[in-house]
Amino acid sequence: MAEMNRRLLLAARPTGMVDASIVRQDEVAVPEPGAGQALVRVQFLSIDPTIRTWMDDAPGYLPPIGIGEVIRGAGIGEVVASTSDRYAVGDMVFGMVGWQDYALAGEGQGARQVLPAGVEPALALNLFGVNGMTAYFGLLDVGQLRQGDTVVVSGAAGATGSAVGQVARLKGAAKVVGLAGTDEKCRWIVDELGFDEAINYKTEPIGRRLRQACPNGIDLYFDNVGGEILDICLGQIALRGRVVLCGAISTYNEAGRPAGPGNYRALIGRRGRMEGFIILDYADRFPEAQAAMFGWLAEGKLHHAEHVVQGLASAPDALNLLFTGGNTGKVIVAL
Amino acid sequence: MAEMNRRLLLAARPTGMVDASIVRQDEVAVPEPGAGQALVRVQFLSIDPTIRTWMDDAPGYLPPIGIGEVIRGAGIGEVVASTSDRYAVGDMVFGMVGWQDYALAGEGQGARQVLPAGVEPALALNLFGVNGMTAYFGLLDVGQLRQGDTVVVSGAAGATGSAVGQVARLKGAAKVVGLAGTDEKCRWIVDELGFDEAINYKTEPIGRRLRQACPNGIDLYFDNVGGEILDICLGQIALRGRVVLCGAISTYNEAGRPAGPGNYRALIGRRGRMEGFIILDYADRFPEAQAAMFGWLAEGKLHHAEHVVQGLASAPDALNLLFTGGNTGKVIVAL
Repeated sequence: MAEMNRRLLLAARPTGMVDASIVRQDEVAVPEPGAGQALVRVQFLSIDPTIRTWMDDAPGYLPPIGIGEVIRGAGIGEVVASTSDRYAVGDMVFGMVGWQDYALAGEGQGARQVLPAGVEPALALNLFGVNGMTAYFGLLDVGQLRQGDTVVVSGAAGATGSAVGQVARLKGAAKVVGLAGTDEKCRWIVDELGFDEAINYKTEPIGRRLRQACPNGIDLYFDNVGGEILDICLGQIALRGRVVLCGAISTYNEAGRPAGPGNYRALIGRRGRMEGFIILDYADRFPEAQAAMFGWLAEGKLHHAEHVVQGLASAPDALNLLFTGGNTGKVIVAL
Repeated sequence: MAEMNRRLLLAARPTGMVDASIVRQDEVAVPEPGAGQALVRVQFLSIDPTIRTWMDDAPGYLPPIGIGEVIRGAGIGEVVASTSDRYAVGDMVFGMVGWQDYALAGEGQGARQVLPAGVEPALALNLFGVNGMTAYFGLLDVGQLRQGDTVVVSGAAGATGSAVGQVARLKGAAKVVGLAGTDEKCRWIVDELGFDEAINYKTEPIGRRLRQACPNGIDLYFDNVGGEILDICLGQIALRGRVVLCGAISTYNEAGRPAGPGNYRALIGRRGRMEGFIILDYADRFPEAQAAMFGWLAEGKLHHAEHVVQGLASAPDALNLLFTGGNTGKVIVAL
């Protein structure tokens, strides 16, 4: 084969935001699928904050990406050759393909899901993918969303946050408040997605605005950001309130250990709960959530947006968008 | 009546430890029980860390004690006069009697529980009282203790902590580790109470000793102290570990907002949970826990200690014992 496999390798561990110095691009021969394997040409990369955490040399729910290894990340590609019964040429598959043009599927490789025909890749990566699943199980299973709850979500114009707010309303929340970083995003989540209120956390006084928006306190706070916003929401948690710990993007680029939420003590007097989760644990139940998502989409009750960036080499900059707030909706790299 | 009711009133809000300047003693006429009321002569005061939190002008699960009001606190007394069907002269009753010689029971007063005959007041205030109940429901209901759990408890030589470690073993924990502040306390919880290990948090390296004692991580951490120990335990939480937030005595005397636990992020990757509770919510279920306590006591499987201080005027110093670690077991003031 004349065609080569371009790969982005982790060259060094970042301090702060990623830049060109932590990535090295190489080109190697396209891998040959062995027995029971398929070759996948990667078409779309899913850009997720968790990738940044894998670049640190710190214990986590997955091992750190090794120096010199292909940068780990989910994505979608098309099967272009196969010796496996499970994958036919032309199938679209989802999995941890990595930041490269070609990946293998099948024997000895990680989990790969064949997409049902008719599901657009953008949707598969967003509402039907990790973000939609995270919103659904984070709210309903971890957060135990109840009828009439006042729900607050940070990172509300991101892929997960925008799904959280909408699913919360569809599942009976009385009020949904989102925090986002631009007035345009705030308008989008209220006007297009149906949030009750939006707070621009960069320009508005967060604590005061939350007290106005949630006069009886916050029943469920879905935390994507950590830091000061988590602390403020803990301080305003309602009796038997729940904090769903999904991520902490405000801290992923910090060196050293981030400050903790001093208001955690409110959990005692208000009988509150703060709980973390990893969506991979729910893989067996994805079909349940995907069916719900499909129904709401068909009824026109669920909206989504994708922010598509072109070209493998753009992946590091695409990752930074999540931390600078340069995106609305799901960030995807199209190869 | 010639006899007077001595009362300790809150004269000023403390900063840090309490001292004579924040308390004012007065003497007023002994109250006359009205219709449906009883007069209780207070015999024992229950000295609990939460009393310190009520002295601050901060929102909590109960309103702050007002300046000039009798200092709020639980205790036990004997009914010496009664116009109520519910209380007979000679009954021993438990409730929020306050720091004074006489309190009323019945109509218009707070909840008062008549003690069953034969239950010693010291036991009623300790294992059958708030401390034992807190240990039982904190471990089993909030903490969802499981067979084989590795359990860590701070304040382990205190009234609640010493019950936590023992109940954890009796309910199937595989290993129980306690943190206490003197070698003598450490010996007591291991030699007398049956803890597997004790760590002197004032002289030993806490993080390293916990990693040795809990090589597979901490399944359940029962937190009485907050601060650095909470943070270290969060950093060593096991997969699906639980942190039971009972109190934060290391912070109650701090001015301003205490630092938060920076390691809370471990709850995400390890799918952990941190939850607070207030034992008053479990009052309906106290008999269930008291029956269990009684059974273990009768079998000689449960041990307790009381630290009794004499005289109403000693109550502020008795409260400080909880923060200086001057007590082993339950602190009680005998009037």
